[in-house]
Amino acid sequence: MRFFSDNAAPAHPAVLDAMLAANAVDTAYDGDALSKRMDGVFSDLFETPVTAMWVATGTAANALALAAMVPPHGGVMCHRDAHIQNDEGGAPEFYTHGAKLMLVDGVGAKLDPAGVAAAADAIANDVHRVQPHALSITNATEYGLVYTPDEVAALGEVAKARGWGLHMDGARFGNAMAHVGCSPADMTWRAGVDVLSFGFVKNGGMSAEALVFFDRTLAADTLRRRKRAGHLLSKGRFAAAQILALVEQDRWLDTARAANAGAAALGAAAGARALHAVQANELFLRATPDEAAALRAQGFDFYDWAAGEVRMVVSWSQPADEIAALAAAIAAL
Amino acid sequence: MRFFSDNAAPAHPAVLDAMLAANAVDTAYDGDALSKRMDGVFSDLFETPVTAMWVATGTAANALALAAMVPPHGGVMCHRDAHIQNDEGGAPEFYTHGAKLMLVDGVGAKLDPAGVAAAADAIANDVHRVQPHALSITNATEYGLVYTPDEVAALGEVAKARGWGLHMDGARFGNAMAHVGCSPADMTWRAGVDVLSFGFVKNGGMSAEALVFFDRTLAADTLRRRKRAGHLLSKGRFAAAQILALVEQDRWLDTARAANAGAAALGAAAGARALHAVQANELFLRATPDEAAALRAQGFDFYDWAAGEVRMVVSWSQPADEIAALAAAIAAL
Amino acid sequence: MRFFSDNAAPAHPAVLDAMLAANAVDTAYDGDALSKRMDGVFSDLFETPVTAMWVATGTAANALALAAMVPPHGGVMCHRDAHIQNDEGGAPEFYTHGAKLMLVDGVGAKLDPAGVAAAADAIANDVHRVQPHALSITNATEYGLVYTPDEVAALGEVAKARGWGLHMDGARFGNAMAHVGCSPADMTWRAGVDVLSFGFVKNGGMSAEALVFFDRTLAADTLRRRKRAGHLLSKGRFAAAQILALVEQDRWLDTARAANAGAAALGAAAGARALHAVQANELFLRATPDEAAALRAQGFDFYDWAAGEVRMVVSWSQPADEIAALAAAIAAL
Amino acid sequence: MRFFSDNAAPAHPAVLDAMLAANAVDTAYDGDALSKRMDGVFSDLFETPVTAMWVATGTAANALALAAMVPPHGGVMCHRDAHIQNDEGGAPEFYTHGAKLMLVDGVGAKLDPAGVAAAADAIANDVHRVQPHALSITNATEYGLVYTPDEVAALGEVAKARGWGLHMDGARFGNAMAHVGCSPADMTWRAGVDVLSFGFVKNGGMSAEALVFFDRTLAADTLRRRKRAGHLLSKGRFAAAQILALVEQDRWLDTARAANAGAAALGAAAGARALHAVQANELFLRATPDEAAALRAQGFDFYDWAAGEVRMVVSWSQPADEIAALAAAIAAL
Repeated sequence: MRFFSDNAAPAHPAVLDAMLAANAVDTAYDGDALSKRMDGVFSDLFETPVTAMWVATGTAANALALAAMVPPHGGVMCHRDAHIQNDEGGAPEFYTHGAKLMLVDGVGAKLDPAGVAAAADAIANDVHRVQPHALSITNATEYGLVYTPDEVAALGEVAKARGWGLHMDGARFGNAMAHVGCSPADMTWRAGVDVLSFGFVKNGGMSAEALVFFDRTLAADTLRRRKRAGHLLSKGRFAAAQILALVEQDRWLDTARAANAGAAALGAAAGARALHAVQANELFLRATPDEAAALRAQGFDFYDWAAGEVRMVVSWSQPADEIAALAAAIAAL
Repeated sequence: MRFFSDNAAPAHPAVLDAMLAANAVDTAYDGDALSKRMDGVFSDLFETPVTAMWVATGTAANALALAAMVPPHGGVMCHRDAHIQNDEGGAPEFYTHGAKLMLVDGVGAKLDPAGVAAAADAIANDVHRVQPHALSITNATEYGLVYTPDEVAALGEVAKARGWGLHMDGARFGNAMAHVGCSPADMTWRAGVDVLSFGFVKNGGMSAEALVFFDRTLAADTLRRRKRAGHLLSKGRFAAAQILALVEQDRWLDTARAANAGAAALGAAAGARALHAVQANELFLRATPDEAAALRAQGFDFYDWAAGEVRMVVSWSQPADEIAALAAAIAAL
Repeated sequence: MRFFSDNAAPAHPAVLDAMLAANAVDTAYDGDALSKRMDGVFSDLFETPVTAMWVATGTAANALALAAMVPPHGGVMCHRDAHIQNDEGGAPEFYTHGAKLMLVDGVGAKLDPAGVAAAADAIANDVHRVQPHALSITNATEYGLVYTPDEVAALGEVAKARGWGLHMDGARFGNAMAHVGCSPADMTWRAGVDVLSFGFVKNGGMSAEALVFFDRTLAADTLRRRKRAGHLLSKGRFAAAQILALVEQDRWLDTARAANAGAAALGAAAGARALHAVQANELFLRATPDEAAALRAQGFDFYDWAAGEVRMVVSWSQPADEIAALAAAIAAL
Repeated sequence: MRFFSDNAAPAHPAVLDAMLAANAVDTAYDGDALSKRMDGVFSDLFETPVTAMWVATGTAANALALAAMVPPHGGVMCHRDAHIQNDEGGAPEFYTHGAKLMLVDGVGAKLDPAGVAAAADAIANDVHRVQPHALSITNATEYGLVYTPDEVAALGEVAKARGWGLHMDGARFGNAMAHVGCSPADMTWRAGVDVLSFGFVKNGGMSAEALVFFDRTLAADTLRRRKRAGHLLSKGRFAAAQILALVEQDRWLDTARAANAGAAALGAAAGARALHAVQANELFLRATPDEAAALRAQGFDFYDWAAGEVRMVVSWSQPADEIAALAAAIAAL
């Protein structure tokens, strides 16, 4: 029973069907009929004209987004525990040609406007100091917390007041949206987001994320950077097919809701053992090594996050009986 | 009737079947059972221990291979018409952090040892001049010509004598092998090749190429570079599945043979109009604009290569009747 | 008797005097009184508002200029024999983060508008091909030829029509100006030049070149790139002092005229043996190995340029008797 | 009365004399007689064979040192307040092509072995996490504290045990050595240092630092990187002359002792107001804004370091009466 991560789950049946349907020859790269639908579909979803492009991984999406906003001599403000800092093998530095990640603290891996502003104010504006050019936030965060649109907007104001771009790493954007229930527009561009990494791989996809540019002026160069990074797939129709299948009929929200509900059940069982509010599809559980071992002995696989802490992630396809069993086991600790 | 390129063809049915079979959850990234089989399968195929890893595109494969052999202050010798120079949007420069491509001439996009040695001899060995660290050849070449193992070995000797690495861009490696009929080992490491970009996308795959390291000391850092480039897929099993399906039962040779045979038929029809020997799956045809227009009027799609030249590529899945029809149309010019 | 190059000559006495005079403590970096005069002095010299900054080497000046105009995924059109291509150890690629140098032919290392346009026209405008973003020309060229203002303007038109920046590598700008006798403005911004590497090291300086931005919008980021490259000297006043000493009283023209005159004398002696017109301070002489050896036996040091060709460079401080002796020796060949 | 920094002080008379003496033409770049003496002079000074090269700035020295030890996908452990992190405009990231600086805390900007080891232990060794490849320490530190040879050796053990390189930023190496009084060898290679940035600019030089490689295998590529960065001066003899003049007769220790003595006098006057022990040539003084303003009103210039803290730096050439006056003014606070 795998609660290790949501990043290895099966692809949604509709995704597989769409890929099979896309097998007939079509124009290469992103010239096919499906890829050409991306801009329109996402413009509809976000109620504003956007440019949307597929990439194969969240790491590529994030790194391309940052490279679009930050020059090599610039910096990116982000949380100390952000995925872009800790889990992408230096991809942001690679794609930006050496921009500096500037780490800010915040509870539950959430940033707040005062903390970001204070960090920025401490940076003298001279050529000796790297200057921030963008703020990157993760929604839902590394700890499964969700920014509300108002919280995003408050950060967006800080960014805009200083001339920075605002990037949202939405590897679990679906989970965040399913939790808040607002419109995608309210969570993103209306709150100041310029570029969104819209994750599908953790939410029913196979190998496709959408990079959505609300600031469309950033898109043209990104198309060149995507090619230069070897991320322009020859048969892009298979990536577009995945994404379109999940956006259609709001499947991306259904899958996220399923995962969130499972995590909520685990959170309810955990009670005070939950280290963070369970808002998305992750439970961070206080557990001694013995307790963790006991759970593993019952067949549950999960991640040792830190001393005395484990992480359990519910995927969109997690069987109900697995969730019930884990909830019972947690409650029995 | 699309003869524009082989890079948008359907995926082979066995590839699709393997991907569907890989849908069950497994370890993420390259920790799954299929990805773990890569080294063994390719070691068997090449009759020597190799490290093999999947990447999504040929551009990524080539750029990672070069980055493994060439420091940022170094250079890569390649043909003036090489894909890495003209068609990858600067990916080699991106991945190598600015190494210089050093262009050499040669008939049919083939390099010869004397030409490479002369180009190298003209470079003074001081800090003012960028020094070559690798030689990159393409087999089959941009013009559909095939290096024999002896020809590769002669270039390999030049490379080894000067301490360079030798990279083979095998985007159409299957087509080259189907033409020559030798063992994969003879065409590669026995001839001095250190790293091979083994193409599958043009030969029945969907979105997976194999990067094969005969010099295994280069592999460890490449795993880090792959992650840093955003090319470590979360669900790598779907990439491995594609490759393994094509290697099993020598399907990659069957598909290549089919494509080559189609091109041979076109070449026979072209006769003296063929600008290069048709050894792989491409025909470069002498055709006036009027002739090209006439062919297009009959429903054939192809690439305008240069003034008075068009390129026709036969894919592994090209219907026999399309090939026959184009052959007849060419013969009738 | 050293005719090997002009890059190792003594510093002009006025330069040394100015440096000694600058020894008193002043604000660090470029905040001192001398550095602050740079913009004004060069604005006067060029009869238009410019931003001017010192750097220690021509390589740094050129690379910073190109980085200001060309994104990492872009290209620079230049002559096949350009210094930036052959003699800077990959500095343009380093500073631009991997932009591609796109080599064009031309007699005497001079580019002509038709040749540049033809090279550019051959580049398809898609994401697979690196696109040129700048044109870089060298005046005087590697072969000691000088572009006239009209010739520069014709190239400037090509650049502007395509949206490129125009860079002039003026490592021997003084020699070019001394030959043409026009105003600095006519040779540069009036002819479309956006950034000039204005060389002083070869023309009486010790370790300072001026990077002059006619397109002042490019200067702010360059100040950051200069720091990031470790080229913001702590005691910038010593660099500014060198440059100001040479600009004052048009010393830079006097030194260049002296060098040019010496080369002209050698050229006159060489007659038909001169491989290029002697317009600046260099003579390229046809000489067999035996002839070269004979000259060396008489105490003359010079550079073996190519088979049967030697290069002789006259510096601003070359003693008259050395020039006369070499001229006589050449005439006696 | 300038106590703002030591980086704008005059050059030592012996430095100026040596530069004037170096004005006669010699081989360009680092082929001159003075540059060729660098290896030998520093090998003597450090009692072991080293490779030593000049560069124009401490930023270039540090960045080249790090690039020699850390691949683009690697990281550098350093103190949170290190100059390489805060004051070099991203130079380490530029030269290393995007390596990550990994910040560690420590009192007085000094690192301790336990802190470094703990930070390293927290980094999982997988491709998702950037791995440290070097440790960089600053001696004397940003707060004017000095590592003893034993302290360096303890950090060297941590580095060596993990396969990292050890870099010492010795922008104020002279001040550190003058304080400790040990042999240069004991402070560096005997304690595990692989590369030293040996600062002269703050200690009597004009525009030259020495980059000293105890691990000589790192030097050859660095010569290429230096050229590629535009730091290979045409007339390197003027840089070498500066350095040699300061090494000869131990002038670098005399200048450092003078500066240290001045700071010690200020420290004695400051008493409990001194925020750090005064070991080198800097005093960090607790001072309210009013107190700082009062000092400035008396003609003293210094740096506002943080709220309630000012920094005063004594240069090698600081007049005795200025030091006495400031000491009196501090004592009178």
